[in-house]
Amino acid sequence: MSKTYKLIELVGTSEKSYEDAIQNAVAQASKTLKALSWFEVQQMRGAVRDGKVTEYQVILKVGFKLVD
Amino acid sequence: MSKTYKLIELVGTSEKSYEDAIQNAVAQASKTLKALSWFEVQQMRGAVRDGKVTEYQVILKVGFKLVD
Amino acid sequence: MSKTYKLIELVGTSEKSYEDAIQNAVAQASKTLKALSWFEVQQMRGAVRDGKVTEYQVILKVGFKLVD
Amino acid sequence: MSKTYKLIELVGTSEKSYEDAIQNAVAQASKTLKALSWFEVQQMRGAVRDGKVTEYQVILKVGFKLVD
Amino acid sequence: MSKTYKLIELVGTSEKSYEDAIQNAVAQASKTLKALSWFEVQQMRGAVRDGKVTEYQVILKVGFKLVD
Amino acid sequence: MSKTYKLIELVGTSEKSYEDAIQNAVAQASKTLKALSWFEVQQMRGAVRDGKVTEYQVILKVGFKLVD
Amino acid sequence: MSKTYKLIELVGTSEKSYEDAIQNAVAQASKTLKALSWFEVQQMRGAVRDGKVTEYQVILKVGFKLVD
Amino acid sequence: MSKTYKLIELVGTSEKSYEDAIQNAVAQASKTLKALSWFEVQQMRGAVRDGKVTEYQVILKVGFKLVD
Amino acid sequence: MSKTYKLIELVGTSEKSYEDAIQNAVAQASKTLKALSWFEVQQMRGAVRDGKVTEYQVILKVGFKLVD
Amino acid sequence: MSKTYKLIELVGTSEKSYEDAIQNAVAQASKTLKALSWFEVQQMRGAVRDGKVTEYQVILKVGFKLVD
Amino acid sequence: MSKTYKLIELVGTSEKSYEDAIQNAVAQASKTLKALSWFEVQQMRGAVRDGKVTEYQVILKVGFKLVD
Amino acid sequence: MSKTYKLIELVGTSEKSYEDAIQNAVAQASKTLKALSWFEVQQMRGAVRDGKVTEYQVILKVGFKLVD
Repeated sequence: MSKTYKLIELVGTSEKSYEDAIQNAVAQASKTLKALSWFEVQQMRGAVRDGKVTEYQVILKVGFKLVD
Repeated sequence: MSKTYKLIELVGTSEKSYEDAIQNAVAQASKTLKALSWFEVQQMRGAVRDGKVTEYQVILKVGFKLVD
Repeated sequence: MSKTYKLIELVGTSEKSYEDAIQNAVAQASKTLKALSWFEVQQMRGAVRDGKVTEYQVILKVGFKLVD
Repeated sequence: MSKTYKLIELVGTSEKSYEDAIQNAVAQASKTLKALSWFEVQQMRGAVRDGKVTEYQVILKVGFKLVD
Repeated sequence: MSKTYKLIELVGTSEKSYEDAIQNAVAQASKTLKALSWFEVQQMRGAVRDGKVTEYQVILKVGFKLVD
Repeated sequence: MSKTYKLIELVGTSEKSYEDAIQNAVAQASKTLKALSWFEVQQMRGAVRDGKVTEYQVILKVGFKLVD
Repeated sequence: MSKTYKLIELVGTSEKSYEDAIQNAVAQASKTLKALSWFEVQQMRGAVRDGKVTEYQVILKVGFKLVD
Repeated sequence: MSKTYKLIELVGTSEKSYEDAIQNAVAQASKTLKALSWFEVQQMRGAVRDGKVTEYQVILKVGFKLVD
Repeated sequence: MSKTYKLIELVGTSEKSYEDAIQNAVAQASKTLKALSWFEVQQMRGAVRDGKVTEYQVILKVGFKLVD
Repeated sequence: MSKTYKLIELVGTSEKSYEDAIQNAVAQASKTLKALSWFEVQQMRGAVRDGKVTEYQVILKVGFKLVD
Repeated sequence: MSKTYKLIELVGTSEKSYEDAIQNAVAQASKTLKALSWFEVQQMRGAVRDGKVTEYQVILKVGFKLVD
Repeated sequence: MSKTYKLIELVGTSEKSYEDAIQNAVAQASKTLKALSWFEVQQMRGAVRDGKVTEYQVILKVGFKLVD
């Protein structure tokens, strides 16, 4: 039986780093989707205030297996 | 607490303009998703008949905040 | 019997809007090609003079069915 | 009344061919989404073992009409 | 004497496979263009009905030598 | 004597349309740059509130001739 | 009255340089198309034999105004 | 201990299909590289003679684990 | 009154991380541009010496509001 | 102390070659920017009249170090 | 005498960060290639298990000077 | 018997032109690889000092047939 996966697109945010932003998005999505198994970074952005980076934002696709 | 957003991809259509096609897609999606807050145009296409544009089609991604 | 389509690339112009520029290109091309059925926007540009947009330019591909 | 469509992103797999991988993904998705009407291939990948292709993987977007 | 080639863009269709869709477009174009010598796939799409792929569509560029 | 041009990147906004957003950015930039002569659209985005588009945003490059 | 332009895609070749390859393609195309007015380079390739470049190949789009 | 992989780029050819072209490239490369484990299709091309496709060509990247 | 923003392109560097390289570029640019409000990562590169990464380099666009 | 660079985008022109067009743009920009240190070609275009290339146009980004 | 460089493509992995994944790939490659001098990030991916990122994966190109 | 080709990525440099930079890279690579048969330009860059281009740099892929 062949496997099928679905990809959803998320934006994760963090004040600390892109790795933390990815982890935050993955953690939030896994509350309702248990089978998340990989991700692909699409874009990296961020917010600035008073000459300082205040937020790292990462757009990512997250993949998971569809249950038959 | 960090925020996480989700992006969904829609195709809006209109006989009038791309702005109208975007508004139609946003209005349709907001029937079930209340928190839509931004969109990004991906592609613009359309249909032609008898030498006239009969439909403007816009592929767009729409983003909204995931509720914790 | 399978269908085959051809795509040609045009630049339409208008002083009013991109929708009008697309319509102008489609109308001009349909003088010699009757079967135009869809288009895809490739790029949007324009001309400026004295701080005002004087021309909207749209590069588009237009598709039509090849007759057997 | 204008139509709105949604695009979802899937990964289909097959031991035989890309066409079969697409068909598998479409069949799996159509269990819950009845109105699937077109797809667009995004990427083609695969797995190798002992110098032989063991799995064809295709990332595709599938579109369907949103019901009013 | 240097050679010059022209590229035209076609959409081929088939109920069976992408290879068949390419062959169909090439055969149709060669009715009027005898010197077709290579092609490049641009995009792969398709139609779905009732959870089954009903048509494979391939957008391709086909090149041929211009006669002096 | 050869000509040299410079391109700057702007984001224009409007509540009405993309054409208006482009015109707004061009008008604002022409306050300090008199020789603006063409533009190229890079991306189209927008803001949504309560299921309605509240702002069209266009990222564009604007070109002008450098004075010798 | 608005203007419409058409873009065709050519491959020019030369043993000397890319500029010469472009000029060769433009000269060949202008035998049948009198109104060629601009071009855009799409890709640059070439052939090698015995450790020497034997041919420069340039894929370019050439634009010309459609006569009303 | 972290793993590192290397990607090499190949062009596979076949008179039959893209799947066969991929398999041919993978089989050829596996004569000297035993650990090939995945591939990613980069481009699909082909040759035409007398209105028939005579060769399918696929550019692909193939990945394998570097031995410590 | 509509808002207009400008985007400038910078390369930030750091011996520590990409986040630090971004912060360095933002801090340097904010010496003369007070209103920096967001950034978008364009490319990530770096320098290597003796098998060690000695510098992380990030190309980013930084946006700020133009004052009326 | 980390270094920061800025990239500006220029269009250079020449009747002779792309290398000459690049040199022209670099020379013109260096009248006001002394620290130019590298460039990246973005696009190559040109003008045609009477079947001859009359101008080579190159869009390039030029980078220079920001002084602390 | 002109210099020539070669680029190879690697995938580095780490449980900690992308910077660590890059460093791991560079260190592994430098066991056999002594002259590595720069890298360019191509793609960032990762693995997820039980709602946590378990591996950061970075595809990068690494450049080094060819010895005459 | 099907043919398989390999592509390697090189950076060629020259003080004179891009054609010379390509030739330099091809000549250097052909010292160890005898069967080089085509190349594809990936990117064009260069170095600047005192307002003059001091080096043209071209990133190219070079293809050659794998011996059975």
